This record gives sequence, structure tokens and C-alpha cells, in this order.
Amino acid sequence: MKVVKFGGSSLASGSQLQKVIKILQADPSRKVVITSAPGKRFEDDIKVTDLLIKYAKAVLAQKETAKITEDIWQRYQEIGDYFQIPAELLQPLKQELLNLSGQQFSSSDFLVASFKAHGEKLNAQLLTTILQKKGMPSQFLDPKEAGLIVTNDPHNAHVLPQTYSNLTDWQNREEILVVPGFYGITENNEIATFSRGGSDITGAIMAKGLAADIYENFTDVNAVYAVNPKLVANPVPIKSMTYRELRELSYTGFSVFHDEALIPTIEAKIPINVKNTNHPDFPGTLVVPEKDFKPQYTITGVASSNHFAAIYLHRYMLNKETGFTLKLLEIFYKYHISYEHMPSGIDDLTVIFDKDQFTDELKEKMCEEIKQTLKPDHLEWIDDYAIIMVVGEGMRNKIGVLKKIVEPLAQKNIAIHMINQGASRISIMLGTKQADAPKAVAQIYQNFFTEDK
Amino acid sequence: MKVVKFGGSSLASGSQLQKVIKILQADPSRKVVITSAPGKRFEDDIKVTDLLIKYAKAVLAQKETAKITEDIWQRYQEIGDYFQIPAELLQPLKQELLNLSGQQFSSSDFLVASFKAHGEKLNAQLLTTILQKKGMPSQFLDPKEAGLIVTNDPHNAHVLPQTYSNLTDWQNREEILVVPGFYGITENNEIATFSRGGSDITGAIMAKGLAADIYENFTDVNAVYAVNPKLVANPVPIKSMTYRELRELSYTGFSVFHDEALIPTIEAKIPINVKNTNHPDFPGTLVVPEKDFKPQYTITGVASSNHFAAIYLHRYMLNKETGFTLKLLEIFYKYHISYEHMPSGIDDLTVIFDKDQFTDELKEKMCEEIKQTLKPDHLEWIDDYAIIMVVGEGMRNKIGVLKKIVEPLAQKNIAIHMINQGASRISIMLGTKQADAPKAVAQIYQNFFTEDK
Repeated sequence: MKVVKFGGSSLASGSQLQKVIKILQADPSRKVVITSAPGKRFEDDIKVTDLLIKYAKAVLAQKETAKITEDIWQRYQEIGDYFQIPAELLQPLKQELLNLSGQQFSSSDFLVASFKAHGEKLNAQLLTTILQKKGMPSQFLDPKEAGLIVTNDPHNAHVLPQTYSNLTDWQNREEILVVPGFYGITENNEIATFSRGGSDITGAIMAKGLAADIYENFTDVNAVYAVNPKLVANPVPIKSMTYRELRELSYTGFSVFHDEALIPTIEAKIPINVKNTNHPDFPGTLVVPEKDFKPQYTITGVASSNHFAAIYLHRYMLNKETGFTLKLLEIFYKYHISYEHMPSGIDDLTVIFDKDQFTDELKEKMCEEIKQTLKPDHLEWIDDYAIIMVVGEGMRNKIGVLKKIVEPLAQKNIAIHMINQGASRISIMLGTKQADAPKAVAQIYQNFFTEDK
Repeated sequence: MKVVKFGGSSLASGSQLQKVIKILQADPSRKVVITSAPGKRFEDDIKVTDLLIKYAKAVLAQKETAKITEDIWQRYQEIGDYFQIPAELLQPLKQELLNLSGQQFSSSDFLVASFKAHGEKLNAQLLTTILQKKGMPSQFLDPKEAGLIVTNDPHNAHVLPQTYSNLTDWQNREEILVVPGFYGITENNEIATFSRGGSDITGAIMAKGLAADIYENFTDVNAVYAVNPKLVANPVPIKSMTYRELRELSYTGFSVFHDEALIPTIEAKIPINVKNTNHPDFPGTLVVPEKDFKPQYTITGVASSNHFAAIYLHRYMLNKETGFTLKLLEIFYKYHISYEHMPSGIDDLTVIFDKDQFTDELKEKMCEEIKQTLKPDHLEWIDDYAIIMVVGEGMRNKIGVLKKIVEPLAQKNIAIHMINQGASRISIMLGTKQADAPKAVAQIYQNFFTEDK
């Protein structure tokens, strides 16, 4: 049995839904479908989720909502019309959308969460209606009915363990189950959403809970590529990779699959197949457990990110003080800042973190507290930092990988400001100036893939 | 004015002291002399400090001490005889040694400290007597009289700030001041020693407190070498290096100069000249502030150490937890373990530390607590770890250094298990298997020095 998730662009219009139906018809083992909200139909289009957030804000501000609900409904009406769905079958969906504004919620956050979730919910109901009209036995399955129970965080919920025993009731159904992605139900019976892009998470939970053989994740790319196609023309598509390779690459911007969605699939050892709704015959990228993986190349991919900044600290005889780093991390903890990496010299420490966590004010306040508490000889805030991740199961215990990474950078006069290898055994992390990163990524890619091919 | 410190082998015998006297006569600006205890005269010889520890233990165990005091005194008698010092001038020194056993101390630790310190103290008194006999105006200056005040740690004392105002009274003396190294006086008026090799520290404190122009540190090597001469034949002697280069190299076993002794010299910006008592005309190695330094080579030195072990931790989504490392360091802190480095991946963390801190029992206990508290998916204790430090002010902002380091290792099939660059800006740290380290160090040395020369 296959669980199949479709992204927003795959469900953005009638013609896209037509492709989805063909994909389901092509393989009768595709028994569980996870929907996203209708995405963009063209570059400047607005995603339904964003329209729903606008709707929620208007309700909270007690403003007029007729125009925005009309805009939202238009998206579903258009899809319904494409498949000639009778008005009496669409009317209940429209009513559900309009009724949202009159409902009571325990907080504004839960109101927004519930509004957002209806992008997926209405789309799942609509898809069920369409499948039934096509003569394909199918059933809409709401997370509430399914028992997909989540924590009480309206916009960043996490699945609770009882979900998996609840889901066993839904295994081995004859009809296709159509499940809206992105949200679950709290123990207080309210809708709470996963973080943005969370339909991937619903798919993974369903794949685990319903014991799927494979989890197909349909998007609008042919495969995950070894390098960003914006940096290198026609890069090698990754045929197969491990969960943790995907995770390491996601870290620096491979955004094909949601981080958290990996957890249920890893727990249940279910392979993920990233495929293209527009070219369903392409093999796509298969993400598998380590034990099922044979690396084809030394490295699987390389990516960079500009999301990071660093604090550099120097203090003489720093490494003789047992409590120095502890005090530093206590300050980070106090300000709710999570750090990513902490390369250290003998008298030096660099802390690298996601810079989106900081406002200018917070930055100043925290640096001041570090100076007061730890009295470093020197403290420097480094903003111009790009992190490059070179990832590959194939580099484990292979000699000369580092040479092949740093060689082309030296030739192209790119300075390496940080390098961190040895913690993760399947990746090497480098720091460069942001301006150097795209060239560095391209050079590293070329040095491995033109030779390995 | 020069402060001059002589190591134990330079003061081990009459013929060695003869060289010391010539060194002092050759340069009248050598006005302050720091003594060590008599060291080894030949390979299997026993250092006087070790004999004194034996003496202290015999007293504590209320055992017979006649034989051991005779062995100790014999060393001083031999030197006295070499310079034909009359018996009545030696007798008070012998009496001081014998009287030690009858004195009261506040604890066994302070007893041992005081016994140990007499190796240096008696040698300084003896040297003063010899210099006076040679017609060189000189005065024995005990740390007590000088006001060298230290913390209340019997075997690991640290200088207290009032020392430096006390020492101003002793600036610009006509006669040579002979100061015993290795110890100071606590605020309770007891002798406490620095950590082993601490005569270097006394010299540095004196150099700062007496406002020396240079601190000459006489040992038995011609210079600090760019690599251990046991690994590479005839390595390049380092003519000049910075304080922090010396510090980084000391970290992995360049044992020419005591770590802590650098602090006063850095504070007072006094250059250190490491010289050979046996070849005083050789220029030796000059250790200078960064601002006075022009690198001659890209790297200054390379060294390795087997003192380290590591704990490897893997846990999925580790980097999303703000408190993970904090909890880990709290455990380290609780067990009084200081860590050295902590390279991290996304879901991995390696903690590297000095393995001498662990007993088998402590290791097991701490690993168990880490498992209980942090519940890692995987914990591994890595014993076979060598750390290689490549150090050089000349590598700052220089492109291609990393390439030159990893290139020869790849060619020689040496696997790099860890690499850490970016915290300290003048060093790169690598981890290899211990068996690979000597070859790796030699290869790195060859790749930089045969080309740079």
C-alpha cells in the first residue's frame, strides 16, 4: 500500500487535479491521499493558505470578509467547475468556509490555525467528491475522525503517540482515503497545524500509522538534485539517498521535504519517493534507510546557506576553565537562542547560530551579557557567514575527500574561514564569505561529479 | 635588564654551573637569575625534586630519613666541592635540609610543597655563594622576602596581584639577584609550589615585576623546532614566533616552556628567548608579541598528542533542542571534567577531552549519566584519537593552507577523522588514529617546509 502526498502546485487547478487522478488510477495500491491547499497557478498567484490567513485576520479585526471569502471560494469553485461538480455538492463546502467566521475558538492563535487548516480540509473534501464522480470509491477522512492527535501548540503542533494506535482502525480499507494535510486535533478537540509545509508531516504520520510500503511525495521537481540547479546547469539528479543525507542537505536549504516529516518514516523504515506530478513516470528520488543504501558517488550533494551568523570569543587560557562554555550556553538558553555549532581553539570559541533568531536589540543585549559574565579579551559578531554542507554516505572512511573539497577552492582563491568535520560522519561543513559560497558550491560539485561520472 | 632562568640540567653539576657563570659574566645586563633544582646529570639519574618528594613521604610515614637526606645533600656537596666552597659556608644549607623534617606544617600537602621547593631554594643559595666567591656581587632573594605571594593551593599555586607592587622594591639593584624558582609564599606565610616545571613561571613573574627588557630561558635545546626532531631529522629551528603560537604548540606537547609562564610575559609584553646553556652563542628561539612578528614561513610548527579521547553522541533532531549541549556540559561540570573541543554535526556531537581526567569507573559512571539524561540514539567512547595541531600566524587569511595540509595525508592514505578550523585563526586541528599521527605530522611538515625554504 502506498501513501501519496500532493503538494500545493499539484492541487492548484482542475488541470493539475486531473494529473493527480491519473496518478491514482495508474496504480491501485495508491490507497491513501494527502492533500495540500491549492497552491500557485502562476508566478504571482496567491496560495489559498495565505488568503485564509488574511480571512482570519479580518475576522479578528472585525472587518468585512465578503471579498476575501469570495476570492478563496473562487479557487475551489474553479476546480469544481473543471470537473463539472453539481452546485449542490459544492454548496456545503462553501458554507463551511463562510461558517468559520461565526465559530468560537479558545484563542486568536487557535482561530488562525483553524482557518489555515481549511485550505487542506476543503481541498480534501473536494478531491473526494471528484474521485467519487469518476467512479473511484473514496472517503474523506478528517484528522479528527482518524484520531490524529497533536500537542496544544496552535501553529507548531507535534504528533502525540496515541495517534498511531488510533490509526490502526483505518488500515487495509477498500476505498481510497483522502486525508487533509497540515493539521491534527488537540486533546481539547481543537485544530492545530504543524509548521508551514507540514502536509509532508501528515503524509509521514499516515504512512507509519497505516503501515504503508512506501510514501510517495509528489511535488513539481523531477528529483532532488546533487546541487542547486540555479548554481550549476543540469546537475545530477539523486536517484537514491539515505534519510540522514536528506536531513543534512535540508539543513542548508534543500527544501524538498519537511525536516520533521522524516521522523515517522525513519521510525517505521518506510522509503520516501520524491516524484513530479507533471512527470509521474520519472523515477524521482528514493530516500531509504542506511542499510538499504549503496552510494553511487562519493558525495551525494552539496548546498549552502546564508542563514547563519557567529560570535567569536577569545580569552587567554580559556580551555583551562571548566565552566566557560557552560556559562556561555546558559546565556544562550536564557535568551532562547539555540546554537548550531561551536568550533573551538585553545583560547578561542566560535558559536554559530541561525541569525533569524536575533533582533538588533537582542543581539546587543546578549553580547553585552556575554562580555559582563565571561570577560573575553575579544568578542566579535560575524555576519558575513555562509555555511556549505558537503554530504555523502559514500565519504565514510574514504580517504582524500577533504582534499577533493578544498583543492578547487584553493585554486579559485576562495578562503575557508571555518571547517568542521568529525561529528557527523557523513558530512563536512565549511564556512566562507557569503559572496564566495555559490562559486565554492559549484566548484566542489564539479570536482566530485565530473570525475566520478 | 635581563631576567635569566636556568633549567634543571643547566644546574645539575659543577661543570654545568660553570657554564651558567660564564653566561652571566658574558652579559652584565643579566641581573636576575632564576634557579631550578639540580636535574639529571645522566640518563638514569634522579632529579633532586624527586628525591625531596621521597624525603617528604618518609617523614610523613615516620620512616628513617638519613639515607635519603644524604643522597640529596650529596648533589649540593658535589657542586660545592667543584667550586671549592669552604665547609662552613655549605654547613648552613645542609642544616636547612635536615631541619625540614622537624618543622610543623598546616597539612601534609603543604609539607610536601615545602620539601619540594627546597630543591630550588638550596640551589639558589649555593649559586649565590659561588658567584660571591667568584667576585660577582650577588644576593640570594627568597620569594618570601621578595613578596612573591600566591594562592593557597600547595601544589598548584597561582600568583596574586600584590606580588607586582611588592617586586617594585627590588627593581634596579646593583648586585645580581638569585631567586629560587617554582614556589611562592601564601598569605598564611607558607610555601606553595607552582605546577611541575614552574620555575619558568617564577622567571616570568620576576621579568614582569622587575620590568625586564627580555626574559632568557636557558634549557638544553638549541631552539624550539618546527617539528619534533624524533619524527623528522634536522628540522627547521624556529627563529621567532608569537606567544600564542607557542601556546598552541605547547598544547600538543611542545614542552619547552610552561603554559602559565606565558601570562606575565604577555601582560608585560616581554620577549622570551629560549636558549641553550651548552651553546649560549646560538640565537635560540625568540617569542614575541604579535605586533612585532613577521612570519617567515606559512606555518610555524606542527605537533601531535595522544592525550585525548572523545565521546561521540548521535540523536535525531539534536540541533533543534536548545538545552542539549547545556545538559551535557552540566554533567561534565558535575564530574569536574573539562572538555577541549566539541565539533558538532546536525544530529551529532563529539566531545574531545584530556583522557587523563578519567578512571575506568568515572568513565562508565559519566557515560551512564549521559545516556540516562540525554537519551542519545548512539553513544561511543573513542580512545584511539590523536590530535595534530598545525600552527602559524602566517596562515591567517592565506588561501590554500588547508589544501597543503590534507594533500599529503590523502597521498599517504591517512584518514582524517576530525578537522576543526575557524575558532583559532592561527591554527588548524586534525584528528587521526594514533598510529597515523607521526607520519601525518612528518608529511605536513615536509609539505610546508621543503617548498617554503
